[in-house]
Amino acid sequence: MTVELISVGTEILLGNIINTNAAWLAGQCAALGLSCYYQSTVGDNAARLCETLKTALGRSDAVILSGGLGPTTDDLTKETAADVMGMPLVEDPRSLERIEAYFRIRGLEMTENNKKQALVPAGAVVLDNDNGTAPGLILEKGEKRVILLPGPPNELIPMFQEQVRPYLQRLEPGILYSRTVKICGIGESKAAFLVQDLIDSQTNPTIAPYAKTGEVHLRVTARAQNEKEAKSLVKPVVKELERRFGQDIYTTKEEISLEQAVVDLLLEKKMTVCTIESCTGGMLAARLINVPGVSETFRAGFVTYSNKAKRKVAGVKKKTLQKYGAVSAQTAAEMACGAARAAHADVTVSVTGIAGPDGGSREKPVGLVYIGCCVAGRTAVQEYRFVGNRGKIRESAVSAALTLVRRCILEAES
Amino acid sequence: MTVELISVGTEILLGNIINTNAAWLAGQCAALGLSCYYQSTVGDNAARLCETLKTALGRSDAVILSGGLGPTTDDLTKETAADVMGMPLVEDPRSLERIEAYFRIRGLEMTENNKKQALVPAGAVVLDNDNGTAPGLILEKGEKRVILLPGPPNELIPMFQEQVRPYLQRLEPGILYSRTVKICGIGESKAAFLVQDLIDSQTNPTIAPYAKTGEVHLRVTARAQNEKEAKSLVKPVVKELERRFGQDIYTTKEEISLEQAVVDLLLEKKMTVCTIESCTGGMLAARLINVPGVSETFRAGFVTYSNKAKRKVAGVKKKTLQKYGAVSAQTAAEMACGAARAAHADVTVSVTGIAGPDGGSREKPVGLVYIGCCVAGRTAVQEYRFVGNRGKIRESAVSAALTLVRRCILEAES
Repeated sequence: MTVELISVGTEILLGNIINTNAAWLAGQCAALGLSCYYQSTVGDNAARLCETLKTALGRSDAVILSGGLGPTTDDLTKETAADVMGMPLVEDPRSLERIEAYFRIRGLEMTENNKKQALVPAGAVVLDNDNGTAPGLILEKGEKRVILLPGPPNELIPMFQEQVRPYLQRLEPGILYSRTVKICGIGESKAAFLVQDLIDSQTNPTIAPYAKTGEVHLRVTARAQNEKEAKSLVKPVVKELERRFGQDIYTTKEEISLEQAVVDLLLEKKMTVCTIESCTGGMLAARLINVPGVSETFRAGFVTYSNKAKRKVAGVKKKTLQKYGAVSAQTAAEMACGAARAAHADVTVSVTGIAGPDGGSREKPVGLVYIGCCVAGRTAVQEYRFVGNRGKIRESAVSAALTLVRRCILEAES
Repeated sequence: MTVELISVGTEILLGNIINTNAAWLAGQCAALGLSCYYQSTVGDNAARLCETLKTALGRSDAVILSGGLGPTTDDLTKETAADVMGMPLVEDPRSLERIEAYFRIRGLEMTENNKKQALVPAGAVVLDNDNGTAPGLILEKGEKRVILLPGPPNELIPMFQEQVRPYLQRLEPGILYSRTVKICGIGESKAAFLVQDLIDSQTNPTIAPYAKTGEVHLRVTARAQNEKEAKSLVKPVVKELERRFGQDIYTTKEEISLEQAVVDLLLEKKMTVCTIESCTGGMLAARLINVPGVSETFRAGFVTYSNKAKRKVAGVKKKTLQKYGAVSAQTAAEMACGAARAAHADVTVSVTGIAGPDGGSREKPVGLVYIGCCVAGRTAVQEYRFVGNRGKIRESAVSAALTLVRRCILEAES
C-alpha cells in the first residue's frame, strides 16, 4: 500500500516552524511497511490544498494530512477534504460533547468558533483527541483513504499511535515486527561500525540505526506472515546485538526511555536518588520526574546555578570554587557529596558545565561539562566535551548524567 | 515572484532525517518577499522527480531543489533537471579543477564517480561549493528558473547566502516585513475571536495566529517596496493589537521567548527569583536557565516531589499536607513562602499538581495544578485544570507559572 503525506500550514511555508511531523509520520509509515513516495506542504488555502489532495489521491492509496483542523477561519483542511471526497459536513454530537467538556474542565469559556470543530464529514471515522479540541478523521471512499490529523505534535503523535496505526495495520496484510535495542554511552558512528557487517548482509530482518542525543537505537525489523514467524526472525539478531553491546544496552523494549530504565534500576535496588544541577538547571530532575511512579525513589532536586547556591545548598567549599572554578571535577564531586548529605539519598548526581553561548575560555571552552555521581559514599566524576548550541549541550549533559548514574549503580553492586 | 521548494532524498521519505533545509530555505524566501505556496519531497527516483519538477514549473516562477547532487548513482537531481529544462550536460573545466583541488588538499584519492559532479547543463550558472564537492546550479529558460543546491546544510546554507540570495534579490524588487505580537495567558480561540474582525478585513498587512502551549503569537506581515514603507504598514496594526491585548502581550519581538521576557523583567526590577516544583520537577527552573545571563537573577531551584522534601526544604507544615493534601492552594502557598525564606529570593514560584497518568481522584483529577507566586512577601495562588498527557500537563503548568510570575511582578509595582 502506498501512502502520501500532506502538511498543511502557512507557518511551514514561511519557514516559521520545522516540519517535524512529516519526519515522524514518515518514520511511522516506513515502520508499518507502507511505501511513501511523496510529501507535500501547502498553506491554509482551499484551492491549492484541493489541487494537492487530488494529485495525491491520484497516485497513492492513502493520504495523511496534518494541520489546519483548528477552530479559526484559517483552518480549512477538514472542509477541503470533505469536499474532495464528496462527503458533506454534519455535526457530530459526541465530538461536540468532548469539546464542551474540554472547556468546562479547564473553566474556560467556549467561543462559537469552537463548535466548528465538531463538524465531521458524513460517514467519516472520528478519532478522539485526548490532548486538544480538534478530533482527527478518517474518510474512506472505494479504495482511497484520507486521514486528517491535528498539527500540534503532542496531539498528532498519540492520536496516530493509538488510533491510526492499528487502523493502517489492519489494511496491510502480513506484518512488520520490530524490536528496538537501545544503547547509551556509545556514539552513533562507533555503534554503526560495530554492526556494519550485520547491516551489509541484512535482508530480513533489517537493522536500522537511529541517533538520539547520547543514545543510539538499533531497530530490528522483520516482515512475515504472522507475529510468531516475525518474532523468530528478530530474536537471534537481538541476541547477537546483546552479545556485542553488553551492558551498554539499557533496554530492548520500545516503550522504555533511558530515564525510565534508570528509575527502574533504582526501584529494583531500593535506592533513593537526588540531583544537583548547575548548567542543566533542573532538566535532569525534570527527565527523571517524567517517569510515573518516580516518587518512591526521588528524594529531592536542587538547582544551584550560582556559586552562592552551590555553597549554601551543597556546602561546596569557597576554596574549591576559587582554586578550581565552578566548572571542575572537584566542584562536581563536592556538589554530589553535599547534596547526598542534604537529601539523605543513596545516589546523587551533580552536573556543572559551560552551556554557552558565553562564559567559555581557552582552558574551559563552551561544552565542557563535569558530571559527578555518588553511590553509597563512593564518588565518580567524569569530564565531557559536548558540541552544539546551549540547548544541545544541556540535553547532551542530561543524557550523559543518566548514563553515568546507571553505570555507577551497576558497578557498585559488582 | 513565486518560488517552490523540492527536497530530494529517500532518507527524508523514510523519516530518517528531519527536513530542516526546507524550513530554512522557506524562511529565506519569505524574508526576500517571494511567495512560496508549495513544498514537496521526493526520493532519488528520476520519473517521480521529473513529474514533480514539471508540476512545480507549471505553477511557480522558480523552483529550488536541494539534495541528490552527490557522486553516487543514486544522485540524479542534476540529470533530471537538465532533462526537464532541455539543457544537455557538458563538462565544466572550472568545476572539475575545484573538485580535483578539494581531494588534493585533503590528501584523498578522487574516485572516477566524482568526475560526474563536474558535468553541468550547457548554459547553466555554476555556483561554487566551498564546503563540499558538488557545485550548485542555476538553470534559466524563458521566465522559468531552476536552482539546484547540495543537500548537506553546511554546504546549502553558505551557497544560498552568498550566491543564490543576491541572485533572487535582483529578480524580485520589494520586501516582506513581519512583527510578532506574543501573548500569554489567553487561549488560541479567545485570541482569534478578539482579532477576528481584523483578520476578516485584512489585505496588507495580514495577521496570522499561531498557538504554542500557554501562548498565542500573532504575526503581522506587510509586503512593500522597501522596509520603511513595510514598517509603516505594520506599525498601526501592532498598535491596535497592543490596545486590545494590553499587558497580556509579553513581547513584540520575534526573538524573545516567554522565559526571556520574565528574566528581562526580573533583571529590570533588580529582583532575584527562586523556584520550587513538585509535578513539573525542574522544568520551570530549566526553562528559566535556558536564558543566557539568568545567573544574575536566579537564586536557587528546588525539586520537592515528595511530601518529605516539601517539609524539609520549604518547611511546609505536616498539618497542611494532612488536611489539604500536597496538591492544594495551601500547600502551594507554603511552598512558595518557605522557598522564599530558604533562598532569600524576592520572587518565588511554586508548582504542585497531578500530572498523571495515575494519582487523580474525583475531587482532584489529573490535570489539577496549583501555582503559587510570592513577590516581596505577598503570595498569590492560582488553580488550573490542564488536559492532555503527563508531558502536556507539565508543559502547560510551566507556561502558566511563567505567566503568573510575570503578572504578579507587574501587579506588585502598580
